[in-house]
Amino acid sequence: MKKYEIVIIGGGPAGLTCALSAKNTYPDKKIVLIRKEMKPMIPCGIPYVFHTLEEVSDNVLPDTPLNANNIEIINNEATDRKDHTLILADNTEIKFEKLIIATGSKAVMPKIEGADKENVFLVKKYKEYLKIMKSRIQEANKIVILGGGYIGVEVADELIKEKKDVTVIEMMDSLLQSMDNEFGEKVKEILINQGGKVITGKSVQKILGDAKVNGVELNDNTTIDCDLLIVSVGYKPNLDLAEKFGLNFEEGKGIMVDSYLRTSVKDIFAIGDCAAKYDFFTGEFSNIMLASTAMAEGRLVGSNLYSIKVIRQYPGVLGSFSTKIGKTAFAVSGIIEKRAKDRLLDYTVGVANAVDRHPGKLPGASEVTVKLIFSTYSHTLMGAQISGGDSVGEMINIMSVMILNKMTDTDINNLQIGTHPLLTASPVVYPIINATTDAIKKWYKNQNK
Amino acid sequence: MKKYEIVIIGGGPAGLTCALSAKNTYPDKKIVLIRKEMKPMIPCGIPYVFHTLEEVSDNVLPDTPLNANNIEIINNEATDRKDHTLILADNTEIKFEKLIIATGSKAVMPKIEGADKENVFLVKKYKEYLKIMKSRIQEANKIVILGGGYIGVEVADELIKEKKDVTVIEMMDSLLQSMDNEFGEKVKEILINQGGKVITGKSVQKILGDAKVNGVELNDNTTIDCDLLIVSVGYKPNLDLAEKFGLNFEEGKGIMVDSYLRTSVKDIFAIGDCAAKYDFFTGEFSNIMLASTAMAEGRLVGSNLYSIKVIRQYPGVLGSFSTKIGKTAFAVSGIIEKRAKDRLLDYTVGVANAVDRHPGKLPGASEVTVKLIFSTYSHTLMGAQISGGDSVGEMINIMSVMILNKMTDTDINNLQIGTHPLLTASPVVYPIINATTDAIKKWYKNQNK
Repeated sequence: MKKYEIVIIGGGPAGLTCALSAKNTYPDKKIVLIRKEMKPMIPCGIPYVFHTLEEVSDNVLPDTPLNANNIEIINNEATDRKDHTLILADNTEIKFEKLIIATGSKAVMPKIEGADKENVFLVKKYKEYLKIMKSRIQEANKIVILGGGYIGVEVADELIKEKKDVTVIEMMDSLLQSMDNEFGEKVKEILINQGGKVITGKSVQKILGDAKVNGVELNDNTTIDCDLLIVSVGYKPNLDLAEKFGLNFEEGKGIMVDSYLRTSVKDIFAIGDCAAKYDFFTGEFSNIMLASTAMAEGRLVGSNLYSIKVIRQYPGVLGSFSTKIGKTAFAVSGIIEKRAKDRLLDYTVGVANAVDRHPGKLPGASEVTVKLIFSTYSHTLMGAQISGGDSVGEMINIMSVMILNKMTDTDINNLQIGTHPLLTASPVVYPIINATTDAIKKWYKNQNK
Repeated sequence: MKKYEIVIIGGGPAGLTCALSAKNTYPDKKIVLIRKEMKPMIPCGIPYVFHTLEEVSDNVLPDTPLNANNIEIINNEATDRKDHTLILADNTEIKFEKLIIATGSKAVMPKIEGADKENVFLVKKYKEYLKIMKSRIQEANKIVILGGGYIGVEVADELIKEKKDVTVIEMMDSLLQSMDNEFGEKVKEILINQGGKVITGKSVQKILGDAKVNGVELNDNTTIDCDLLIVSVGYKPNLDLAEKFGLNFEEGKGIMVDSYLRTSVKDIFAIGDCAAKYDFFTGEFSNIMLASTAMAEGRLVGSNLYSIKVIRQYPGVLGSFSTKIGKTAFAVSGIIEKRAKDRLLDYTVGVANAVDRHPGKLPGASEVTVKLIFSTYSHTLMGAQISGGDSVGEMINIMSVMILNKMTDTDINNLQIGTHPLLTASPVVYPIINATTDAIKKWYKNQNK
């Protein structure tokens, strides 16, 4: 029987980060990472294997940090557990002191007639699956993408650039439902300007074709022809091991964990997409699955395996993400307006537009839009949305740090921010500050009513 | 006699922001901005008028926001004050309730023999001066820049791109003294690779030539020929009005102000480069002059003219700035290592390198280096330095917000950060977090000694 002190199951970002964090905190412990895949994918890089990256293998999550830190890798599948012993698919037994489950999530196939036809693909995370999918895409011409969330629109953007005839179908009334509709409308416009087609507010009721897909039938009974269908309607926590290991879990929500990601069984932790998540603002279950959250959990658990050294700093999932469609970047952190409305949070909105170089004649300038949601009474920043040039990818993190620190409108209004003509908006129009000023003006106006 | 409720003297970023902030807070007050210049310059855009921008007039700070907010502009010079009445150069009298002085700073000419020769220029902020300077630069071939601070190296970068034979002379042992030497060394390397020359650790003792400069003599008695000399060794607060108005001030430091930028005379405020500044960490006088600080002060005063509505959120000048030399951006916020050492602050350094796209094969990838300074005992982040691609300009603001919020190493280690393949580093190697991890590892190591 093999013996390790720390055993991690799952080779994605959560498992990798947890392994590295554990090594930093407990340098003398023997650590192993067990994973099914020989070559795990970078999850958020997957859409880019279809056009921007030449090969699927260009998107492999490198083993370099694991090797450099003497963390062993076993390519195998965990199938069962007896107390502090893990059993692998080949019946190898592995003894552990601490076990971390980081088995991620699975792409969801909705119940639609014909979903089993050839050339119907999910956006799965496996290299060999993606290689087949890429070669079929290359042979195809007309492609339908079912689901206009961020993965759906990223794949659409790639396939349009690959010169395919692409139609995105989204059930809701706008694309990119994780942002407010005005941002989803921009995404739609970009996809259409690039030659794509977008259908919103309609669902697919049937996948057509004989052995192979040749079209989809919408809920208004119209049909759209296609040679290939990509279904991207969401992911659900992978709970296979939770059941086998006797851990508390909730279907569709994840393995139950406390604030330190400890499961119902002593010495077993769950992190990343497979662990249940709670919303930062309301404490409800959250179905947001992001590598950034997974890795924050991985780092926390890696530091706290034998005792709680690091007090948990985040009281829930903030949900910070960014993407780029065409030449425009989009990003969100915290609550969006439609959710604030739905969950009955009193809010004041501030909006600002600016050019992200100054003077605007400087090269590389893009128009940036910032939308902020403040708590009307508490004045704290609750959410931020932004579209613009590439620097949006880091601007959203400024606002994540603001939300996490419960900064108020006046805190932000007095901020000392670094700006530079060639790199940022002018300090006069710096959009995070100006959107805050806009919210303050609205607040004053409402007070005087 | 004209009457305004709020009078602002100075048309730079501080005055402009203060005017807009005052209008937001006191929409019914009559506001006027008095300035010497018909067309004020965007201060940080000035280096770029020499090459990147076609015309000096492309760098004018637009009046649009003032006009849109019904803020009057008077192009004139304030020369004296009697109680609540201001006297202009043409003897116009203007009555005010609240007066804000935002007269900025002046470029310093060090005492060097020959400083009055033709073709010796300072980097002044006046449009007409800059137009003459630009035309002389166009005629010149060999140009010496005295001073390797950020303005000196920005101008050098521009003039090298303009195909001039450029030599930068810096008295200290490395360029860009506002950052640690390893960053200054990178700047030096970039300027040299582009064809520039850099001399460090030497000063200029004499400016040579008859009527017109034809060279400089260094303190080792060697000489360097040139057709034009640009002196960029710093700025000092413009205290002309402080003296005339009877306000307390300290030579070289600025007009004395309290936390709300109130001067020693009731109803008179001073903001921006002309107001004394205090260091965020030590409370000493600070000679850091940045548009971002000036504007934070402008916004604060604009909101607090008739009563303190907004409690001051920043206890001193953080000093956040960014620049771009060649294709590499540099940025700093808070304390740097050499200053921490000099001012006896116990510190732990963390460093990380990463590629700012993931996988690194994606287009637009640059190498990013982050250096963080933490308080060893308090664990709070005290300073950040960074070099890399364009997004560095916004990454530094993430760290400014972290410093302002007194975030600790473990706060940052557990951060939920948004990342995206096309926009940022991978979450696995996200350099702000990994530099923090590096500092934590060093802290552990030192604890176990």
